[in-house]
This record gives sequence, structure tokens and C-alpha cells, in this order.
Amino acid sequence: LVATLRRAWERADVIIMTGGLGPTEDDVTREAIAELVGETPQIDEAYLSGLRAWFAKRGVAMPARNAKQAWIISSATALANPIGTAPGWFVEKDGHIIIAMPGVPREMKKMWAEQATPRLQAKTGATLFTRTLRVYGLGESTVEERLGDLIHQMNPTVATYAKSDAVDVRISAKASTTAEAEDLVQATAAHARHVLGKYVFGVDRETLASVISKLLLARGWHIAAMESCTGGLLMSYLTDVPGSSDSVWGGIVTYATELKIAQGVPADIIEQYGVVSDATALAMARAIRHNLSVEVGVGITGVAGPEPQDDKPVGEVHIGIALPTGETVTQVNLWGERAEIKHRAALTALNLLRLQLLGEE
Amino acid sequence: LVATLRRAWERADVIIMTGGLGPTEDDVTREAIAELVGETPQIDEAYLSGLRAWFAKRGVAMPARNAKQAWIISSATALANPIGTAPGWFVEKDGHIIIAMPGVPREMKKMWAEQATPRLQAKTGATLFTRTLRVYGLGESTVEERLGDLIHQMNPTVATYAKSDAVDVRISAKASTTAEAEDLVQATAAHARHVLGKYVFGVDRETLASVISKLLLARGWHIAAMESCTGGLLMSYLTDVPGSSDSVWGGIVTYATELKIAQGVPADIIEQYGVVSDATALAMARAIRHNLSVEVGVGITGVAGPEPQDDKPVGEVHIGIALPTGETVTQVNLWGERAEIKHRAALTALNLLRLQLLGEE
Repeated sequence: LVATLRRAWERADVIIMTGGLGPTEDDVTREAIAELVGETPQIDEAYLSGLRAWFAKRGVAMPARNAKQAWIISSATALANPIGTAPGWFVEKDGHIIIAMPGVPREMKKMWAEQATPRLQAKTGATLFTRTLRVYGLGESTVEERLGDLIHQMNPTVATYAKSDAVDVRISAKASTTAEAEDLVQATAAHARHVLGKYVFGVDRETLASVISKLLLARGWHIAAMESCTGGLLMSYLTDVPGSSDSVWGGIVTYATELKIAQGVPADIIEQYGVVSDATALAMARAIRHNLSVEVGVGITGVAGPEPQDDKPVGEVHIGIALPTGETVTQVNLWGERAEIKHRAALTALNLLRLQLLGEE
Repeated sequence: LVATLRRAWERADVIIMTGGLGPTEDDVTREAIAELVGETPQIDEAYLSGLRAWFAKRGVAMPARNAKQAWIISSATALANPIGTAPGWFVEKDGHIIIAMPGVPREMKKMWAEQATPRLQAKTGATLFTRTLRVYGLGESTVEERLGDLIHQMNPTVATYAKSDAVDVRISAKASTTAEAEDLVQATAAHARHVLGKYVFGVDRETLASVISKLLLARGWHIAAMESCTGGLLMSYLTDVPGSSDSVWGGIVTYATELKIAQGVPADIIEQYGVVSDATALAMARAIRHNLSVEVGVGITGVAGPEPQDDKPVGEVHIGIALPTGETVTQVNLWGERAEIKHRAALTALNLLRLQLLGEE
């Protein structure tokens, strides 16, 4: 680690590290930085009391080995970690900056955004403004093809990222003021929105579920779902959104066919068309909408795998949507493992609902 | 990239890379390897037809830029990627091996396990046997403290990993035969199980949900859940398990209080004890167990945040479990953001249910 840090030090002004700040014996990032800069770690007593309090709040004694998470060296400032035990280090020495953050993704992201970025900006005098357009329904390479020459621009830069719930188009501009950087981003974002059209569902930290939550709130509508193959995942995504209790009424997971019938799906529809069919998906949407007296009913039935069901292949999913303004039902054929099919089925349902609410097909 | 690869080449026999195999312009891992070894990529026509078929199956034309995913160089063997478009490369040249795999985690993991590892083993003649003990209910540092000197053993090695659904204790032994390596692992695993006790819920790829699925199947029991703050996530975890339709009956997400009452939770219990209470959680478990005529009923109510509810703090969760053999209800106080609290609440419920089914507290 010290050899690698030394090489980085020789060629870079800013070194960013993640991981190795935990309490266990193989967490030696602090030791490596201290050796590199030739300093000896001391215990930060205030941080140590904070650590003890963190554990006490959770009803457990602090393990002795966690004490090293309170280490500090004189050229470092501790970066607060409100959602974990390991603080980061912001080291300034001989014109170099080293930023060490935890490896746990959610702790690292929060620390990067709230603690590291502002300090870095203050040091460099440059501002970066970033806007992310979130895209659902197009693959990453299709998004890149549509963006064309935008990908080769230098300021703002445009880059695509395949995320598990969207393809993200990140547009970043650098300028001496935030307003200037934002203006640069705005123009490119407008162009990108034009070529990507209805596939752009939101920006930055928005999700399909949060966008739907907003659309429902604006109409004063409530939603309920009857889920089979997604097993509750659609409802879970909808309830991930803070404040979703204002638009999410509830839902039913009808894994067993008998339960679908007990919940109002006509037995003759299931018999005639099969459990995995457009007719059943729509009947599920209608039944839940009626039974729970909500404006928006969604029904999902399909084959999550790994085995086919009733001669329907793995990945065949039917989604029914019943709204006050009309009904729609769609079949999609998804790929991947079981959890992946559930995930994509739930996202596909959310996107269909979004397009319906926006009055598009 | 080429400079970094060259440095790795100078100090290592085996170089493992992930990422940069996508179709876009910044995916240049193939280019870098080809330059390092001084070879020119050619199109593998058979792979190219396969790629075209992959896209055709999904009803879209292959974007032109995906063609470079069919590139190969003469010292490389393509590693199949059955769940994505980017094949890996297994390069052998001048006594060095380079393994390049996709960055998408699930594609990489599958390729590593099924394609890369067997080839590496064949080359090195050594066998590694690994067993992972999965632990729930203890923090990583407590697990490490309990394991004590095991952590310092050399063969097998013992290491802990904080995963989102467990603390994993990975025990790995190296030997000339698999049987020999397995024997080494077995003895250490028995010791680790002894010091970790009931907190070990499974091994290797088992999850809390898959373990419960097995326990229920063994008893011929069915499960149903009434979920409030987890919003369907518990049911979704249960239905992530292949074959779970044999033990999962269904569930109800009762986000609205009126819906809880409509589904059989006595209004006077909610009035007297509050929606977020032991009494309501147990009443939910009883109601779903009764209404859906299943052996196992689970009720979850709590505050997912970000705002407190009815004077109850964010993270307070009550879990009720009703079984043919008795009932139990527990309150836990969880921390983290909304999605994190939902996740931990669902896992805590699964673990409580596991301990109940095993007849432990």
C-alpha cells in the first residue's frame, strides 16, 4: 500500500482512496498514509467518545479494536461519517491532498458528496455542475448512438452509465462559478432530452417510483397492486419513496392461484387464458382497483423462473394497468436470473404506468 | 491503461481485470491488452453472429458499435458470457495470464466462477476450497473478536466480509486435491460454528429467505405476511428463492391504517396501542394467518422514515410471528435511511422467524 501510495504521490496532486478504514486487522489504510507522510497516529479523544456513544446507542459495548477508528495524524482532518463508525481522512501535506473514505458504498457516497467535494472545491477554485438524465427503455449503446457527437464534447462532458434501474446520462460542466457551469449543462441537457424523448423519466436522484409518486400526488390518486411473479417488489419500490404513504394504499401478493381467485380474479378468466396471460393481468388490476377502492390498479403475472410455468417461458410477464381514464395491458419478455426478472418486471410496470399517466403509449 | 498493464506484467504472473468490455467508446480494455501484447484484434465471425442473435431475440437490431465485442486476438480465448453481450478474454502469452472480465457484477461473478477459475486451476495445479459461513445478528468486528486466532491462520485462511444481508466468514484452504482442501476447511468451519453459535444461518450462497424456505418445506407449512413499513419487501425476499411458490402463499401490504382494519386487525388494538406497536404487529400476524389459512403469519409495522410517525422514532419496528406452535413479538430499533430500514426490518423478521422455527430465541 505504501509503495502504491508513493507512486500516486509522485504523479498526482490529489489521491482518492476508499476502503481499509474498518476496525479489523486487515484495515490498514490509516497506517499506510501515516507511514507515507512520516507521522504517528494519535487517538482523537473526542471522536473516541463519539464512537463509544454510537455503540452505546445500539445497546452494545464498543469492541476494543474499533478504537483505531479514532486515530488521527497532524496533517489530516477527520471527515465525519454520520452513518457509520469509520471517519475519513482529508490529508494535506507538501502540496498534495489525500482523501481516504470508507469502502461501504453508502457511507463513501455520502462522505464524498458532503465532506470531500466541498473541501476539494475550496482548494481548487473550480466548480463542477452535474446533471444526470435518467433513461428507461433504451439500452446503453442505443442511448450513446442517439447522443451522437455530444459524447465527444469537452465542456460539458457527456457520459452514459448503465445502472440497475436506468441508463444514466451524466452531463458535467466546469466553470469558475456554479451559475456559469449550470448554463453550460442546461443547453446540452435540452439537446439530449430532445433526442431521447419520452425515455427520459427523471433527473439526478429521481427514480421511476419517485416520479410516479409525484404524478399520483398531483392528481390526488392512490395506487394499489396485485402482484404475482414480482412477489411484492413493485409495492416495495413504490414505498421506497419518502412520503409515499400519501399515494400508496396497499397491495396484495397473490402467489397462489387460489388467492388470486379469492381476491376477485374471475376463475373462468384464469381457466380460459391461463394464470400467465394478458387477461389475468388486467383482471388482477381491475380486482385490486375495485377491492381497495383506489384510482390506480396494477396487476402483474409472469414466470420468474428458473422453471417455465404452464408452458410459458421464463421471463414472460404480463402487466395490466387500470386507471379512471382507461385500461392497458402489455406483455414483455425479460431475461436474466429470477431476482433480475422480478426487478425488471417491476421497473417495466412502473415505466408503463408513468407513460400512461403522461398520456403517452 | 497500457502503462498500468505493463507495470502489472513486470511484477505478476496473473493479471485480472474487470470492466471496459462494453460497446461504447470509453470501453478500451481490449485495445489496451492488444497493444500490450503487440497483436491486432480480428472479428470472431461466429461470436458476431451470436451477438446478432442475442439482440434479435430481444427484438432489436444490434447497434454497429457492439461489433467490437466480437474482437479476439490470437493469444486470447473468449470467455462466454451467457447473461450479457461482452465476452471476457483469457490471454496467455510469454508465461503470463491476463483475465479480462465485464464490470457488471453479476456477469463478472458468473464468468469468474464458471470460466476463469477452472482455467486458472488447470494452469496452476493447485486447488482452493472455500466455504462461507453466513452470520446474521452480530457486527463484523464482534464476529472477528469471537473468531480470535482463527483470523491469523494461514491454511485455511479465515476472513470476514460485511455484506448487505449478512456478515460472511470465508474459510479457504489450498491443497493439491479438492478433498484435502475440503478437509482442512471442515475442521476450521466446525470451530467457527462453535464460537458463532446460532448466529450462523447458512453457508455459501444460502440466504435467510432460502433457509426459511427449506425449514417451511420440511414442515409442509405455508407463509403469508401482512406488511406495513416494509411495503412488500419481506414477501419479495421470500419469493426471490426458486421454488418458493411451494411455501409462500401470498401477502398483503397494508400501508393505510384503514386497510389494516379491513384486513382483520382489530380497530381497538390500533386505537389503544397505536399503529406502531407490539400489539398491532402481533394482531397483523394473527389476522393474515387466519385470513389466508396458512400455518405461518408474519406482521411488520414500524417507521421507515424520514419522518417520525405518531411520536415513534424513525427505525422503530415491531415484528409479530404467529405459528401453530406459538406466537412471538419483538421490537427492534434500526438505523439508516428509509430503504436501509426497510431492508434491515425484513431481514430481522426473517432471522426471528428462523430462530422461532428452530425452536430457539
